[in-house]
Amino acid sequence: MSDNTSLLLPAIDPTADAALASRLQHRIDHKTKPQGALGQLETLALQLGLIQRSETISFDAPQMVVFAADHGIASEGVSAFPQAVTVQMIGNMLAGGAAVNVFARQHGFALQVVDAGVAAALAEHPQLLQRKVAHGTHNACEGPAMSAALAVQALHAGMAVVRDLPGNVVAFGEMGIANTSAAALLLARLAGLPLADVVGRGTGLDDAQLAHKQAALARALARHADVREPLAVLAALGGFEIAMMGGAMLQAASERRVILVDGFIAGAAALVACRLAPAARDYMVFCHRSAERGHHLLLAHLQATALLDLGMRLGEGTGALLAWPLLQSAARFMAEMASFDSAGVSGKN
Amino acid sequence: MSDNTSLLLPAIDPTADAALASRLQHRIDHKTKPQGALGQLETLALQLGLIQRSETISFDAPQMVVFAADHGIASEGVSAFPQAVTVQMIGNMLAGGAAVNVFARQHGFALQVVDAGVAAALAEHPQLLQRKVAHGTHNACEGPAMSAALAVQALHAGMAVVRDLPGNVVAFGEMGIANTSAAALLLARLAGLPLADVVGRGTGLDDAQLAHKQAALARALARHADVREPLAVLAALGGFEIAMMGGAMLQAASERRVILVDGFIAGAAALVACRLAPAARDYMVFCHRSAERGHHLLLAHLQATALLDLGMRLGEGTGALLAWPLLQSAARFMAEMASFDSAGVSGKN
Repeated sequence: MSDNTSLLLPAIDPTADAALASRLQHRIDHKTKPQGALGQLETLALQLGLIQRSETISFDAPQMVVFAADHGIASEGVSAFPQAVTVQMIGNMLAGGAAVNVFARQHGFALQVVDAGVAAALAEHPQLLQRKVAHGTHNACEGPAMSAALAVQALHAGMAVVRDLPGNVVAFGEMGIANTSAAALLLARLAGLPLADVVGRGTGLDDAQLAHKQAALARALARHADVREPLAVLAALGGFEIAMMGGAMLQAASERRVILVDGFIAGAAALVACRLAPAARDYMVFCHRSAERGHHLLLAHLQATALLDLGMRLGEGTGALLAWPLLQSAARFMAEMASFDSAGVSGKN
Repeated sequence: MSDNTSLLLPAIDPTADAALASRLQHRIDHKTKPQGALGQLETLALQLGLIQRSETISFDAPQMVVFAADHGIASEGVSAFPQAVTVQMIGNMLAGGAAVNVFARQHGFALQVVDAGVAAALAEHPQLLQRKVAHGTHNACEGPAMSAALAVQALHAGMAVVRDLPGNVVAFGEMGIANTSAAALLLARLAGLPLADVVGRGTGLDDAQLAHKQAALARALARHADVREPLAVLAALGGFEIAMMGGAMLQAASERRVILVDGFIAGAAALVACRLAPAARDYMVFCHRSAERGHHLLLAHLQATALLDLGMRLGEGTGALLAWPLLQSAARFMAEMASFDSAGVSGKN
């Protein structure tokens, strides 16, 4: 696609380093525990060490960024909540009252909200980054959600957001009424999955509403049946918060920051990012397996196992923040646990 | 059984309180999120509120207690590690180098190690509680692991341990070579499960060693085929750390403390405690689903869903500590999240 030529992707190094991986695994295996007994904490420690190119893992100034936008497809009645809730929940976040605020305070994350494309003007606020690409997307049932040029603009804006952030960890979350629809459309098309397997109840649809949502999404997919190239799929079916988040993830990977991926919608952004630059996958920690239908398929497609599976379906970045102490635990066991030799503990029979 | 008459169980109140439960659920449902969107954090908040008889949840001086003991059945070759490792790992814990130390420091838990029945004399240490019932159990393949009198003694000693602890949260972990064998035997008998479904690889048995372990455990079950009453089952098949942990859990429940249950062996102690006093179940938070075979059946038997499922199989209390931030998150969202009314956010369509 010619649109791709205008997209400037940052250079992303794969984290693979056989010598370092061997040293990390040796360190993990000689801690005073049976081999593998710390399960996912061990694979996490290996990944973090490779990201940071170090046998010791350290974190600095972790950032939570919530990308918000509205979706034209909301007019099809695909969400249980009215579109006005996008703006109201941004206000709630800026006032400190949303779940993401609570968990960001708990774990010492700085929180920024990015207006990627909310369908209303927002008042200035020190924690609000005004990066509005447009007042919501178009209805993907009727045409492309956005032009390819706006998709590129959103991706570039996301890169710039991360470029300006301190620290070596970025958690990604989102807010946007109807954005499970955009995420499901992206997942269906980019991963080649049946729509019925990836359309879920979002914020709480009943059976009839779910069938209605699925019919609307089927029309959107049919409307863009021949669109296959990742950037074009993003433009046709995506959302501004997803596009901007995808760009932000690519930038974070290019700077070797740890990427904390929240739930279903952040996962769709991760999928877009990995299609544009597969090496970005190395930097991603998948934090929570959402209760939203299709998320487990998204994770499987990305060969990812989420750290948490708490039956949540809130988004905002809540799952990413709740998983954070596990990353700290991975860093700490690497740094602080004794080895069999140093502790004088016998090995296996 | 006449042995039961010598067991003095503390009084445990069920936490059920319909009026308080209704107030808690109302508070949960009116937070700025779709109903149920915080998944297991919501059921956890409800449970914690009922335990603490309050709409606000607060934690004080959380305690990690690791119960250690040896097992006569180790002589059957059921573990990948030699029995000497029990003492060595206690030394490692008292020196601060084990995984449980790392995570206890991370989360601000005071740590005590209890010698419930280690097969060696242990030197005094400020963090070691010397409550040795005997130098390890007998081999359950040849007779009862312990007498009913010693089982009662261990249960009572566990109660006394908790009675002397400050705070309103106790996390339970263990250390003891061959204690997955004792736990599997208790689970098979008390829950009526086939042995093949509950015998796992412990610290890392290969296929042949696993078959050997299963054969030994089958002989132990056959040796005590007619033993069915919980205290007698504990005496015939259990271990001193499991018995003492069970008593400690009962005392914690009687004092309305939150009980953090670690993995497979702590789960077996929880099962024993619930058989002796079913109301104890109300106070238990199951923290990690162990990779050890049979743990998911134990959880299902207790109608429990673990908070974490990280593929760990280390014990010590590591899973309990890793889950702790989730309890803090449950308390915080109840205290700090805005309601739909207070934040001016619209409800569902």
